[in-house]
Amino acid sequence: MVAKADGNTLRTQRTRARVLAQSLALFNEVGEAHVTTGTIAAALNMSPGNLYYHFRNKDQIVEELFARFEERIDVQPGAAAAGPAPGNAPWGPAPRNAPWGPEAIEDLWLYLHLMLESIWEYRFLYRNLDDLVARNRRLRERFNRIVDRKHAAVVALCEGLVAARAMRARPDEIQALARNVLVVATYWLNFRALRVRGDAPGDDIGEGAFQVMALVAPYLVGAARAHLDRLGRTYID
Amino acid sequence: MVAKADGNTLRTQRTRARVLAQSLALFNEVGEAHVTTGTIAAALNMSPGNLYYHFRNKDQIVEELFARFEERIDVQPGAAAAGPAPGNAPWGPAPRNAPWGPEAIEDLWLYLHLMLESIWEYRFLYRNLDDLVARNRRLRERFNRIVDRKHAAVVALCEGLVAARAMRARPDEIQALARNVLVVATYWLNFRALRVRGDAPGDDIGEGAFQVMALVAPYLVGAARAHLDRLGRTYID
Repeated sequence: MVAKADGNTLRTQRTRARVLAQSLALFNEVGEAHVTTGTIAAALNMSPGNLYYHFRNKDQIVEELFARFEERIDVQPGAAAAGPAPGNAPWGPAPRNAPWGPEAIEDLWLYLHLMLESIWEYRFLYRNLDDLVARNRRLRERFNRIVDRKHAAVVALCEGLVAARAMRARPDEIQALARNVLVVATYWLNFRALRVRGDAPGDDIGEGAFQVMALVAPYLVGAARAHLDRLGRTYID
Repeated sequence: MVAKADGNTLRTQRTRARVLAQSLALFNEVGEAHVTTGTIAAALNMSPGNLYYHFRNKDQIVEELFARFEERIDVQPGAAAAGPAPGNAPWGPAPRNAPWGPEAIEDLWLYLHLMLESIWEYRFLYRNLDDLVARNRRLRERFNRIVDRKHAAVVALCEGLVAARAMRARPDEIQALARNVLVVATYWLNFRALRVRGDAPGDDIGEGAFQVMALVAPYLVGAARAHLDRLGRTYID
């Protein structure tokens, strides 16, 4: 049973959610810089006054969207799959004689897909990243914390692969590799948008994951390498 | 001897050059979107009318700067160095028993430095690339032609290294590698600007070249790989 007092709360939450969804759609479509709170209110058939009741200004909308993006992208590798059996943790040491490499590669592939999907969903953040973080220092710091965590996750992932003898790479190579993974993942959609007209999210995400895997591939050995080559061929065909 | 009639031409050229240099400095400093022709004229102690006599509008200034950037960045590998002896062309087939790998690596390193220096010099183009090319289709096409030529140059370079047995990579690996080289080279300075505050051009360019070489490194073999590792260590120390 919903008490009467909660009706307003519910309505408020629904309105806020509608404003955020509409803002995200408009920001992604025409760029955040070209959208005003007036545009958003008009698209929702809402009075500007009503919008201001829910959000002080556009920056508050951007920050709330960023918070949702942050939650969405903060999935950790391993958690990407349904979750491994305790004795078979994909980023810990490899179990004896287990076909460990291919499984880890599938997981990495899925992880990259989810990461690029999050970026695609909130692509307005990435399109004018410099402007956005120049204007808002809090967003800059939060964005950098995301990159820091992703960098650490990729390094841990590679160290897991090295421990499992599925990868051959020195620590300094892993650091440079992780930086390149972050650069390509961060800017792949921008690069595609520059090169190809039109929105083709599925392809762009698949190609992005493929490009990032291509960074990792030459360091893989044995079954992991062979499995990645197979995945890559499936993708190209 | 400069004839009297040429005095005006010379003065016009000088004024245009001053406007372009000032615009480039302002665009790089605060972003092209935040600079108007009024700002540029004021910075030069010039009347807006005089500026308009030389440039119709800001877009014309941007296009002329782009043309200069295009010339600057269009240096080809090999031409980067003083130029090899005819019998020792670095991107053709390797001469028998020549210590070909290390030389090619030095050339590649220099080539990447020059490329990243050009990008740094005209970094305003890269900071809001999406906005810029969305606004101006001609710039979009010209920018894509630059990327196409760079992609072809990197592929040719890798094929040269494979022919010289300094690299081991399949054609599809070379294609994916070339795309990643372009993504990292294009966005490295943006990524650095996001991660670190302040302008440190020298370091950023060196680190960018290092990151791009790290993409190529795992495909190198023998003397070329050893030489790159040495260069990398020099850079890190």
